[in-house]
Amino acid sequence: MFSATTYTERRRQLANALSSGLILLPANGEAALNYRGNTYPFRQDSHFRYFAGYNLPDLVLTIDVASGEGRLYGNDFTLDDVVWMGEQPDVADLAKDGGLSYGGTLDRLAAALSQSGEVHYLPPYREERRQQLRDWLGHCDRPSVPLIRAVVELRSVKSREEVAEMDKAVATSMRMHAAARDTAMAGMTEASVAGLIEGIAISAGGRLAYPAIVTRNGHILHNHYHGNQLRRNDLLLVDAGAETDTGYAGDITRTFPIGGVLTDRQRPVYETVERAKSQCIQALRPGVAFREIHDLSARIITEGLKDLGLMKGDAGEAVAAGAHALFYPHGLGHMIGLDVHDMEDLGEDYVGYDDTIRRSELFGTRNLRLGRALREGFTVTVEPGIYFIPKLIDRWEADGKHREFINYDALEGYRNFGGIRLEDNVVVTSDNCRVLGSV
Amino acid sequence: MFSATTYTERRRQLANALSSGLILLPANGEAALNYRGNTYPFRQDSHFRYFAGYNLPDLVLTIDVASGEGRLYGNDFTLDDVVWMGEQPDVADLAKDGGLSYGGTLDRLAAALSQSGEVHYLPPYREERRQQLRDWLGHCDRPSVPLIRAVVELRSVKSREEVAEMDKAVATSMRMHAAARDTAMAGMTEASVAGLIEGIAISAGGRLAYPAIVTRNGHILHNHYHGNQLRRNDLLLVDAGAETDTGYAGDITRTFPIGGVLTDRQRPVYETVERAKSQCIQALRPGVAFREIHDLSARIITEGLKDLGLMKGDAGEAVAAGAHALFYPHGLGHMIGLDVHDMEDLGEDYVGYDDTIRRSELFGTRNLRLGRALREGFTVTVEPGIYFIPKLIDRWEADGKHREFINYDALEGYRNFGGIRLEDNVVVTSDNCRVLGSV
Ligand SMILES: [Mn+2]
Ligand SMILES: [Mn+2]
Repeated sequence: MFSATTYTERRRQLANALSSGLILLPANGEAALNYRGNTYPFRQDSHFRYFAGYNLPDLVLTIDVASGEGRLYGNDFTLDDVVWMGEQPDVADLAKDGGLSYGGTLDRLAAALSQSGEVHYLPPYREERRQQLRDWLGHCDRPSVPLIRAVVELRSVKSREEVAEMDKAVATSMRMHAAARDTAMAGMTEASVAGLIEGIAISAGGRLAYPAIVTRNGHILHNHYHGNQLRRNDLLLVDAGAETDTGYAGDITRTFPIGGVLTDRQRPVYETVERAKSQCIQALRPGVAFREIHDLSARIITEGLKDLGLMKGDAGEAVAAGAHALFYPHGLGHMIGLDVHDMEDLGEDYVGYDDTIRRSELFGTRNLRLGRALREGFTVTVEPGIYFIPKLIDRWEADGKHREFINYDALEGYRNFGGIRLEDNVVVTSDNCRVLGSV
Repeated sequence: MFSATTYTERRRQLANALSSGLILLPANGEAALNYRGNTYPFRQDSHFRYFAGYNLPDLVLTIDVASGEGRLYGNDFTLDDVVWMGEQPDVADLAKDGGLSYGGTLDRLAAALSQSGEVHYLPPYREERRQQLRDWLGHCDRPSVPLIRAVVELRSVKSREEVAEMDKAVATSMRMHAAARDTAMAGMTEASVAGLIEGIAISAGGRLAYPAIVTRNGHILHNHYHGNQLRRNDLLLVDAGAETDTGYAGDITRTFPIGGVLTDRQRPVYETVERAKSQCIQALRPGVAFREIHDLSARIITEGLKDLGLMKGDAGEAVAAGAHALFYPHGLGHMIGLDVHDMEDLGEDYVGYDDTIRRSELFGTRNLRLGRALREGFTVTVEPGIYFIPKLIDRWEADGKHREFINYDALEGYRNFGGIRLEDNVVVTSDNCRVLGSV
């Protein structure tokens, strides 16, 4: 938790961005695993954490736009809870520590809300929250667009103390990847490596920021199966990031060969992805649209695939047509912060696009989460990749797609290649960017 | 997953236990962490897994009581999903593999349910399920007591193949505890140990069965804070169990001194808990009420505390009055299986009590989850403990509670002791019981 003045200032800025009404920001509750008493590890709502700081469940923050007053609501623990939970601070004391007024119990909140005029809330992403909003307000599907825009504006630009937390998250993530590379060998299961790296994230006092991908089948992009045994010359793709105890995420991907040496077939593909990553990082600076950097990565990948005889024709034209997306069907990156896809619950287009840069409708490029112009203090991922997806190759070939840019015959020898992705996290500086985790 | 005939037989027995209607057993869905696309690790509903076997989200099993026919409903993946998820079997193929009829999409299910008469469902423990039931049936708060009773009857007695899975879960849990004991030393954080053991559970192909307790403050019973640094002579309480890839839970507790040697103050308390555990395990057999074994553990603990001058008077009378609960405020154990507190979502009294043995209303003893007579094939935990909880001691002393059994003055020297719990998992055999994980 940062100092109380940090949160007070954030709340002041948020209230100033709206014209009237009451802002309602509930904390998350516990999430049931297989019965109510057995819960997943608690994960605070990122907005509540950003504007109130507390990493505790079932609290609610309100901000009166007119007066700027922040209030904290919540139910106190009973003396019986002491046996099970230890001594817990009263909500009134929590409020005082955090520079907030104490509003009372959740019943008091319900009564206050029933008498409020305009209430601004964010889109709910858990059913418990939807039910809560229905109980309090009679609806849960009318999130406040002015509130969404104001939150995006504030959270997009990271303060120095936030960047310091991001550096910690990435540094721990780098330790996880170093351990994976040092340990993985033929005969081990993917799960062994997954346990090793998740353990490191927890030992550091946090946890994983998202479910780890640890797979010899890197061409399946969201592959959380860890049951395979590793074999010599497999490409192991590890996409895993730590979340700090303060809630900030790292999101790092490395792909490396079991046995330590890339084969002659793997090396040029790897080097193309590496080149795309480093050249894109060099190109990042305030004012540049991330969409342009994405297109740069697609052109570099297309050039590399042309050198291998897998693509042909003009790289710029191929990218404009979307032909590269057979091999690179995702976006170059996304905002990162308290969420690994920062603020994705608010809607990707509010976070990643604006009136000047709109989302593409092309296969592949439409998956780009961030298109708009960068500003100093943005923290983003850079994660180009090349994948050989047999089902997709078959479908495109059968449909005769992009024959002028793709040499389908030459792809036969790559059907069992898998995939390579390399991902770093950077902060945009005044004139360039800095790779996180390196200080 | 066991063989299809295992699940078919379970469904047949379940249908036979009811007189009419349709049994509705939905799988769990994904649970959102901080936005819809970032989910907690998927955890299947234990009942769905027991009666259908699949470890996949968003499927639904129905069983027609009259005909015994089981149907599987679910939505197929689209070809677009292949890029992100890899190739996935169709629901129709899944149904065929599992000895089920294919019912169709979830829309088809909704239509079928709207035309059904009596629908039996279990109590929902996630809000998503409540919403689903409201959408399908118009209510979510009328669980079927006959279905609850039938499920408890079936799942309480573990088959040989289930016990084999329990042995695996406990064996992995034992490896976690051995690693903790071998690694923990002064200067480390509790989180370091927590990461180590959680990593082992994941590396084994499963995960933790419940959030691990790793604490130098063992007297706080549900303490998931891992931020303390360990010091020499601390008692580190570790309550952690693995869940196998098949979903079965271990639940093991060990308490050990940092530095490896119990102090003179710690040793007799430890030995009392150890004695309670081993004597209770020896006393377990079919026909004996678990409530009686709990009372035995309370008497052994009371005798041990009398030897230390902390309690006095007749041990049997002290236990009957509930005086021991100042030091031992929880129950001796609970059923364990696909859930660490097996079937707790169905209601503890259905699982742990019956018409002949009812739950106590005494502080402490009322927390006993299992009271009824044991049967061959039950798998249960045995977990006595002794804790010194300053706030509770202060309250009881101020209230003058049980002065005839408790020497409050002598407790002064134990206020910072912490707590000791030792927990094993056993399967009740034809004439006795066997500690799990030992084969
Ligand atoms: Mn990423
Ligand atoms: Mn237990």
